Amino acid sequence: MPQRLKLVVAYDGTPFAGWQSQVHGNAIQDHLERAFSTVAREQLRVHGAGRTDAGVHALGQVAHVDLPARTLPAETWPTALNAALPPTIRVLRCQYVSAAFHARFSAKGKLYRYRIWNDRILPPLEWNRAWHVPGALDTAVMQEEAEAFIGRHDFASFAANRGQPEQNTTRTIDQARVRQSGRCITLEFSGDGFLYRMVRLMVGALVRAGQGRAGRGEILRRLAVPAQTSGTSRFVAPAAGLILVRVRY
Amino acid sequence: MPQRLKLVVAYDGTPFAGWQSQVHGNAIQDHLERAFSTVAREQLRVHGAGRTDAGVHALGQVAHVDLPARTLPAETWPTALNAALPPTIRVLRCQYVSAAFHARFSAKGKLYRYRIWNDRILPPLEWNRAWHVPGALDTAVMQEEAEAFIGRHDFASFAANRGQPEQNTTRTIDQARVRQSGRCITLEFSGDGFLYRMVRLMVGALVRAGQGRAGRGEILRRLAVPAQTSGTSRFVAPAAGLILVRVRY
Repeated sequence: MPQRLKLVVAYDGTPFAGWQSQVHGNAIQDHLERAFSTVAREQLRVHGAGRTDAGVHALGQVAHVDLPARTLPAETWPTALNAALPPTIRVLRCQYVSAAFHARFSAKGKLYRYRIWNDRILPPLEWNRAWHVPGALDTAVMQEEAEAFIGRHDFASFAANRGQPEQNTTRTIDQARVRQSGRCITLEFSGDGFLYRMVRLMVGALVRAGQGRAGRGEILRRLAVPAQTSGTSRFVAPAAGLILVRVRY
Repeated sequence: MPQRLKLVVAYDGTPFAGWQSQVHGNAIQDHLERAFSTVAREQLRVHGAGRTDAGVHALGQVAHVDLPARTLPAETWPTALNAALPPTIRVLRCQYVSAAFHARFSAKGKLYRYRIWNDRILPPLEWNRAWHVPGALDTAVMQEEAEAFIGRHDFASFAANRGQPEQNTTRTIDQARVRQSGRCITLEFSGDGFLYRMVRLMVGALVRAGQGRAGRGEILRRLAVPAQTSGTSRFVAPAAGLILVRVRY
């Protein structure tokens, strides 16, 4: 009887082509599937909670896989898989779950973090891990504007088109925080789901507000007129600053 | 009249062959000299405060260079050089100094930091930035043993041989701290100078003590019997955990 295994996975997104399997085989999903084929000697499909773009990091991505049998105890799987994975992908925890669990469809929400480095020079150890924004940023304005995201909205204006338009662009954001610690500005967004590039478009809008390049209340106005192909300038924050912190079930 | 320029430089040591110029040209010194030749159109020698090994990071390495003339204002140099450097090397500050200043010979001391990740699994974003020590570590014992380093000692037992023995192996350590924050153990050492691989040998000894693999007081005993070619097992902590924080003048 097949056994469904849930995985919590962390990765440094820098060297990979994002989550989703690619022909060249350098996506995180590809590496995990190869690790399973090494350990389980079986071609298995790994299903993720969501795709992350190339360069996006994860502290707690979730995935599941259907094993032909319960060949290993759950706590042995991380060690076995990590031995077959590059050190920039780590399986943190594994757990056998019922067939009713689905990494993507059972997800109730996600928490994303975005890091901005607000200084003249980006420290070398922040390269690929933060968005370098050298000029002045008003974090009080950013926090004020961020609050507009909270609640249930049609986020079509904060979604990129992935080939075809999304059917349902309504999402609920329950947390949108802006914190500053020295030169690092950390933004956190938690919600029941995020559209394609939604966090990076939200961050882009907040940075424009913090730079004084967008009028106060612009986020409210963009939410009020949801338009996936809107003519308003869209500013996508770079992938390197984004971290998928956890998936809630 | 030649003008001496002082540079404060940060780097992620991972992609480089250490500080000192190499035939293949991938040392940090090589990259800086190429950046000077791009900006100043002149082959210039960059003198560092000290060599860091391959993989060792720096937040505040110091160097100097003799320019043929004061061609640029000091504050323009970082921007000009950074434009010619890889993003994992950044010139943070520049300053014109008198010819009496020498990055290496004028240095009065250095501060080093060493990061240990003490958990079963090394998080992907800590790869190349910390030493992964998975087992139990008694940080109280490590702190106690670290105090033995403080003061003026012959550190021959904590020096690796770089081809030929050092003439003078006496150094003064004024600070040796062990702090724990979650799974990260940070050790800091400040002193008037450090021998080749001295910090990594000190950290290796402290980790052995923290693991209970070395008797209490072993560091005192090794300091009491300084021997560069001693038979005692030497345990060198990996380069990736080491950061040159600053050079004192």
